[in-house]
Amino acid sequence: MKRTSRDIRTANRYEVLRQIIAASPTSRQELAAATGLSLATVATLVGELLDLRMITEVGFEDSAGGRPRGLVAVNASGGALIGVDIAETYVRVELFDLALNVLARADEDMRPGESHPEQVVGHVAAAVGSVVAQAGVEGARVLGVGVSVPGQVDRDTGVAEYAPNWDWHDVPLLDLLAEHIAYPLYMDNPLRASAVAELWFGAARGRGDAVVVNLGTGVGAGLLLGGGLHRGVSNSAGEWGHTTLVLDGRLCHCGNHGCVETYVGAPGIMVNLRELAAESALLHPDDQTATIDALARGVAAHDPVALKAVRDTARYLGAGIADLVNLFNPEVVVLSSWVAAALGESLLHEVREAVARHALRRPLAATEIVLSAIPTDPVCLGAATFALEGALQTVGQRTAAKRTTPARSRTAPPS
Amino acid sequence: MKRTSRDIRTANRYEVLRQIIAASPTSRQELAAATGLSLATVATLVGELLDLRMITEVGFEDSAGGRPRGLVAVNASGGALIGVDIAETYVRVELFDLALNVLARADEDMRPGESHPEQVVGHVAAAVGSVVAQAGVEGARVLGVGVSVPGQVDRDTGVAEYAPNWDWHDVPLLDLLAEHIAYPLYMDNPLRASAVAELWFGAARGRGDAVVVNLGTGVGAGLLLGGGLHRGVSNSAGEWGHTTLVLDGRLCHCGNHGCVETYVGAPGIMVNLRELAAESALLHPDDQTATIDALARGVAAHDPVALKAVRDTARYLGAGIADLVNLFNPEVVVLSSWVAAALGESLLHEVREAVARHALRRPLAATEIVLSAIPTDPVCLGAATFALEGALQTVGQRTAAKRTTPARSRTAPPS
Repeated sequence: MKRTSRDIRTANRYEVLRQIIAASPTSRQELAAATGLSLATVATLVGELLDLRMITEVGFEDSAGGRPRGLVAVNASGGALIGVDIAETYVRVELFDLALNVLARADEDMRPGESHPEQVVGHVAAAVGSVVAQAGVEGARVLGVGVSVPGQVDRDTGVAEYAPNWDWHDVPLLDLLAEHIAYPLYMDNPLRASAVAELWFGAARGRGDAVVVNLGTGVGAGLLLGGGLHRGVSNSAGEWGHTTLVLDGRLCHCGNHGCVETYVGAPGIMVNLRELAAESALLHPDDQTATIDALARGVAAHDPVALKAVRDTARYLGAGIADLVNLFNPEVVVLSSWVAAALGESLLHEVREAVARHALRRPLAATEIVLSAIPTDPVCLGAATFALEGALQTVGQRTAAKRTTPARSRTAPPS
Repeated sequence: MKRTSRDIRTANRYEVLRQIIAASPTSRQELAAATGLSLATVATLVGELLDLRMITEVGFEDSAGGRPRGLVAVNASGGALIGVDIAETYVRVELFDLALNVLARADEDMRPGESHPEQVVGHVAAAVGSVVAQAGVEGARVLGVGVSVPGQVDRDTGVAEYAPNWDWHDVPLLDLLAEHIAYPLYMDNPLRASAVAELWFGAARGRGDAVVVNLGTGVGAGLLLGGGLHRGVSNSAGEWGHTTLVLDGRLCHCGNHGCVETYVGAPGIMVNLRELAAESALLHPDDQTATIDALARGVAAHDPVALKAVRDTARYLGAGIADLVNLFNPEVVVLSSWVAAALGESLLHEVREAVARHALRRPLAATEIVLSAIPTDPVCLGAATFALEGALQTVGQRTAAKRTTPARSRTAPPS
């Protein structure tokens, strides 16, 4: 979709709050310098955020010879945000203050086969109730709940259209959740959640084009292009896990053969390990988490089978990431999600070497490959960020209506 | 890179001129309705284009009950643009008026092996001289020459960094051309040229995200995201031809194995044909153009070998295009360049079926796959469009300087 001045204004609102969260306290002048926005624009946006009580005035600093400058800081207690990470093997819920500090966390394991929508909704509702009680926040202060669910989602209708690992088709997840949860609900998928987390708080913050490679049970690529998330025309962009790496290769649950995911998702890594050493003690059949953890411990102990399994996986991953480097020419590629976190530096090292063997010289020279440095669950953080963005967008709409500016007009001056 | 208000203004300037070229004569009111811009913004942009003599006032139309509305039209004779398509097997140069009508054309064949930069520059200089003479335009009216050269290019320095089919490395092509050509020179590569042609004049005009798949000797994907061309951080985005389709597959001249290009570029199609029927009369060794033309005639005559070769090629192409559909979730995929033009509807039909077998349901449902409908050489047209964009950008800079707006400030109002 074309970006309008309205999109730019929303992005500017996000960027000013991002900067305040990153560097509180700060002045309007510092914000203008850090964001490249004009002082007048920053002043208007800061006014909106003050009205919302998302930020607060915290005093003044001297400016050399000029008037003292007002300082603002994020009003951490001005509201609470909840992020929900529904994964294939667990549900994790975190409650954040407005500085995006984690105040409470609840984890629920899901047993293999426990994937009926009502079961999942039960886990989520219980965990959301738990974090609100733990943190002792009033319900009225919860600005929203962001929910990440695997697969293809229609975020406007709140329907999980297709979750291949569970064979979900057209599950009205937000409607089901709304029967148990009274806060505003927002939904998207983990690849977009972790991408937005990197954009707000991680390696993509303040950078040019970035790709966030999500390595979990499923895999995908969050595309941060032109300073924002590229969603595509029907919010399904980024399905890198379902691009062909090996024509006529391993059968994928999507129906295609040779998808990237079948080689580098957690079940794919288990196949790599089995092909290498079918009897390996590292292999925990039917338990992805235990196998990946065993692999990580094996690498740390210089177990040759573990080292070879990671190298084999990195070979597939390197070819797939080189495709992303050649296609997008990004400034940074971030490896995120639980498999990347578990295998860490050893995987990163092998992946960098494999990408260098496959990618073209020019985009390779422009790209850095890093592990996610977000210390908490990036999917929970990203899901909470969707709730924060939702709250900020509502504000924008109210402001626009008050000023009787039509929602879709573009008012940027021509030069 | 982040898009600023300045980028939006440049894009708006392009969009107004695009609309005037598409629908002359037209009124400022119609332009505002067609582009979604405010009437004030349109009036300013129209004023700039009138000052430049790119458009002209052509009278008035009645408006029901209101003041008569001034009409503007493109001033076709207000300047000339030259587009240069340097391909592996030919150089084509076209001279356009400002309505982007072709006024003159010159073609130069390049024999296999005739790929030294000085030889190529000689062909280009001769053809540029020829079209200016043929069209009888004064040199002063040539606003610029856009040059498309295969491979990875640094458009700021005018260096052809890497043209794999010729083994060019760091050739200072624009400097070499400037010794023979006195007009302003702009450079980019064919995948971006044909993408911009589709954005201005073809299937991507007025659409959301689009991918232009270029099928020639080399292959690539022009990425039209958010209403503009996605270039990446070092102008090398879109190298889809060098993404892996068959891990450990055919050796590619880029050094990687199994690249898309080795299966669906013209030399790759020749390999497909040879694997199918090594002695086929369709095969013209060392002559890509003759082979693709023979294949097209064979398909028209229902030759079973030709039909099977196109189906095999479409199988590779379908898997590769499904990757683009899954990754970008575009509204339209356009098949462009000479191989797509030669094989036409039969290739399109097979590709649509193959993509449907590989792509995910949600992005597939949102995507249309079409052949380029641009009647002339889309790379020449796109290269000329780069020259037009260059001329329009210069205008913007002059205007900005006059108004003492710093070039990098963002001045969009916050709401």
